[in-house]
Amino acid sequence: MTAMPAPALTPVPAPSSTTPDFTRSGESPVHVSKHAIPRGFAFGATHCGLKKSKLDLAVFISEAPASAAAVFTTNRVQAAPVVLCREHLKKSGGKIRAIIVNSGNANCCTGPQGMAASRATAAHVARTLGCRAEEILVSSTGVIGAPLRVEKILAAIPALTLACGAEPSAFEDVARAIMTTDTRPKWASVTCRIGGKQVRLLGCAKGSGMIHPNMATTLSYVVTDAAIAPALLSRALQQAVGPTFNSITVDGDTSTNDTLAVLANGQSGARRIAAQTSDYKKFVSSLRDVCGSLALAIVEDGEGAQRVIEIEVRGASSDRAADQVARTIANSSLVKTAFAGADPNWGRILAAAGRSGVNFDPERVDIWLAGISVCRRGRERAFDEGVVHERMLAKHVPVLVDLRSGKGRARMWTCDFTQEYVHINASYRT
Amino acid sequence: MTAMPAPALTPVPAPSSTTPDFTRSGESPVHVSKHAIPRGFAFGATHCGLKKSKLDLAVFISEAPASAAAVFTTNRVQAAPVVLCREHLKKSGGKIRAIIVNSGNANCCTGPQGMAASRATAAHVARTLGCRAEEILVSSTGVIGAPLRVEKILAAIPALTLACGAEPSAFEDVARAIMTTDTRPKWASVTCRIGGKQVRLLGCAKGSGMIHPNMATTLSYVVTDAAIAPALLSRALQQAVGPTFNSITVDGDTSTNDTLAVLANGQSGARRIAAQTSDYKKFVSSLRDVCGSLALAIVEDGEGAQRVIEIEVRGASSDRAADQVARTIANSSLVKTAFAGADPNWGRILAAAGRSGVNFDPERVDIWLAGISVCRRGRERAFDEGVVHERMLAKHVPVLVDLRSGKGRARMWTCDFTQEYVHINASYRT
Repeated sequence: MTAMPAPALTPVPAPSSTTPDFTRSGESPVHVSKHAIPRGFAFGATHCGLKKSKLDLAVFISEAPASAAAVFTTNRVQAAPVVLCREHLKKSGGKIRAIIVNSGNANCCTGPQGMAASRATAAHVARTLGCRAEEILVSSTGVIGAPLRVEKILAAIPALTLACGAEPSAFEDVARAIMTTDTRPKWASVTCRIGGKQVRLLGCAKGSGMIHPNMATTLSYVVTDAAIAPALLSRALQQAVGPTFNSITVDGDTSTNDTLAVLANGQSGARRIAAQTSDYKKFVSSLRDVCGSLALAIVEDGEGAQRVIEIEVRGASSDRAADQVARTIANSSLVKTAFAGADPNWGRILAAAGRSGVNFDPERVDIWLAGISVCRRGRERAFDEGVVHERMLAKHVPVLVDLRSGKGRARMWTCDFTQEYVHINASYRT
Repeated sequence: MTAMPAPALTPVPAPSSTTPDFTRSGESPVHVSKHAIPRGFAFGATHCGLKKSKLDLAVFISEAPASAAAVFTTNRVQAAPVVLCREHLKKSGGKIRAIIVNSGNANCCTGPQGMAASRATAAHVARTLGCRAEEILVSSTGVIGAPLRVEKILAAIPALTLACGAEPSAFEDVARAIMTTDTRPKWASVTCRIGGKQVRLLGCAKGSGMIHPNMATTLSYVVTDAAIAPALLSRALQQAVGPTFNSITVDGDTSTNDTLAVLANGQSGARRIAAQTSDYKKFVSSLRDVCGSLALAIVEDGEGAQRVIEIEVRGASSDRAADQVARTIANSSLVKTAFAGADPNWGRILAAAGRSGVNFDPERVDIWLAGISVCRRGRERAFDEGVVHERMLAKHVPVLVDLRSGKGRARMWTCDFTQEYVHINASYRT
C-alpha cells in the first residue's frame, strides 16, 4: 500500500484568494442563515398543479434590475424556455428583474404552443412586477414532450409574487420547488468582502438525472448583491462553470433544459466590480465556490447514488487529454457499477481510459483507489482487497490515475451506478 | 397511430444474394446439426481450473493450415493474447492451425508475465499439433489485471487436444467454454453452395458486458471449409463486421480483449473463391449472416437484458451522421432504462439524438416506437400509452427516428438497462 498524494474531495480545485464564509445544504447549519440572503431579493414558491401535491413553481425577484449572465445546454434539442431566455438576455441587455421556474414539465418538444406558453409566463410575471417581459427569465424541468398546462402557472402567478419574501425559509422553498427526482433541496451560500463591504452569493440547484457536463448542467440559480456589469458577470460565470458544473456527470445524458443563471443586483452597497481587479478575482472565486458546492451536491444526490467518486487524471499529454480520460472513466457504466459494489476493479478504470481516444502507454499507468496504490506501471500491485473495499464504502471515494506521459491534469466528479438508478428511470413517466 | 414502415428486426440489413440454410442458438433446432460442421475441423473443451467448476478452456483445430483473418479491439489497452494474435497472423502469413481460448481471466494488464503466458500457451498447442507457434491464435476473457495461472492451461493442453472431435456436441462445449457472464451459449451456422459444392460456416461468440461497437466486439470465432486466400478473407471479414458486430452495444464499454477470428480451411472441396466473383459475394453474404446472427445473440443475452432494441435512424445528412445519432441513442442510460420499464418516453430518444453532435432540426423529427407513431415534427402525437407499453414488452422492439434532413441511414442494436445489469456488475470480482 502506498499513500496517495492527497486528492482531497473539495468541490473547488483552485485555491481561493479570499477566505469565504461558506455553508451549503447537507452541512450544518441545516438551514440557510438569514445573513446569507443577498439584499434586494425576494423569493416565492407554490403548488400550481403541475405536480400532484408538491411545490412546483418558484420565483426569484430582484427589487432593482439586476445584471444577469447565464449558460445553457449544448443539446441540439432545446426547450422553449431556454430559447426564450437567450432572446430575453439579448433584448434586455443583460438586465433581469425575475426568474420563474416550474418543475413537473420540461416544456420541451412542445412546438409553437410551448414557445407561447413560456412567453405568456414571462408576460404575466412582468405585468405583476410592472416591468418589460424581456426582463424575465423562464425555466422548466420535468417530462419532455408533454404539453405544458400553462394556465395553471398563469393562474398562480399573482398570488405567488404577492407572497414573496426575503426570509431564509422562502429561499429554501424555492430550492424545493425546482426539484424533480432530487431527494433533497440543494443550496450553497458564500459571503466575501469587497471594498470593506459584505457581499452575499446564494445559489440553489436541482439534479438529478440527465446530468452530463456540456455547458451548464441542470437548473441552477445564483443571486448576489454584488455590483457588476452584465458582460463582466458573464465572464465570471464562464470562469466559474468549467471546474464546477462542467466537471460533473451522473449519467452522461445532457438535458434539453440545462440552465445556470446568475443575477447580481448591486444592493450590497459594495463598490462596483471592474475587470482585472482583486475585487473581480474575489468575486470569481466566491462564484466558483457556490457553483462547485452546488455541482457537488447534484452528484451526491445523483439518481440512486450511494457515493461520490472523484476522478483525478494526471500525467496526460495535455489538460484536454486528461479531461477526456477523466470523462470517459466518469461515464463508464462498468466503472460506476463496480463502485456501487465497492469493488476495487481497477482494470475497468484502465480499460475505460484505453477507449477514451487519448494516446498513452498502458504500461506506464499508476492507479490509486481510495488512496491505496492498486496498479503500478499498468499491472496489479499486491493490495488488501478487504481494506480497499472498506474504504470504497465511504461517501466520497477518490480515484487517481497517473498516465505518466505529460503534465496534463483534470478532475471530474461522478456517482456510483446503482439498481435504484434503474428503478427510478424505468418508470419515470408511468 | 400510424404504422411504421417496417423496420423488421433482422440481424442482416442487406439482402442476401444466396438463400442460405440458416440456424442459430435460441432457435429450433436447439442443437448444432452435424451437417453444419465444416469439414476438417475438430473442437475440444475442458475445465482447467481457472473457473471453479465450469468449462474454461476451448480449442478449434483445423486439420490443414487454414486461411485466417481477424479484427481486434480498438482499445488503447490491449490484452497480451490480442498483441500475440496480431504478431502470429503477420508471421504466419495468415495461415493458422488452431485457436485456443480461455475464460476466467482476460490476461490483460499483466505485463511481460502475461505476454509470456500467451506465448507459452501457443507453444504448447503447437507442440501437440506438430506445427509452428505462429500458426496458433490465443484468446482470453475474464477479469482484467489478475495474473493468469497459465500452468493450469499448459497442464490441460495435451488431454484437450487428444479429446477433440468433430461432433456437434464438441462445438457446443466450445461455445459454452468461452462464456463469462453469458447465460447461454451462442452459435450460428450457414451453408451455401459454391460451384455446386456445399460450403459450411459455423460460428460461436461470447458476450455479454463491455460490449460496444468499435472494431470487433467480444470474442467470436467462425470456422468454414470454404477455400479462400487470407487477404481476401480479410476483406470479406471487414465487409461483414460493419453492419453486424460493429452495430451492437450493450454498455458502451469497449473491451480490451475483443477478437473476431475466421478460419477457412478449404476442405469443402468447393472451388477457391476469388475477388469480384459471385462466389465471393455469396461467401461475404453468408459470413455476414453468421456474424449478424452471433452479434444479435450477444445483445439478446446482454447482461441483465430483457429485450433487444433495434434503433433505425433515417433522414440524416449522411450515413455517418445517422450512425452517430443511432449510437448515441443506443448508449443512452436514460433511453435504455426507459426500455427496461417499457416506458414510451420518446423525449429521451430525441434528447439523446440532440446531444449526438449531429446537426438537425428538432422540429422536423418523426419517431415511431414499436411501430407506433409517437412524435411527429418534434412534437408528441396522441397515442395510446397502454398499447405502446404493451408492445414495448416484446423481446424485440423497433425504434425508428426520421430526422427528415437527408438520406443518411443507420441501424444499431442495443438492449435494455436493468437492475440486473447493475447487480451483475457491482459484484463481478467479489
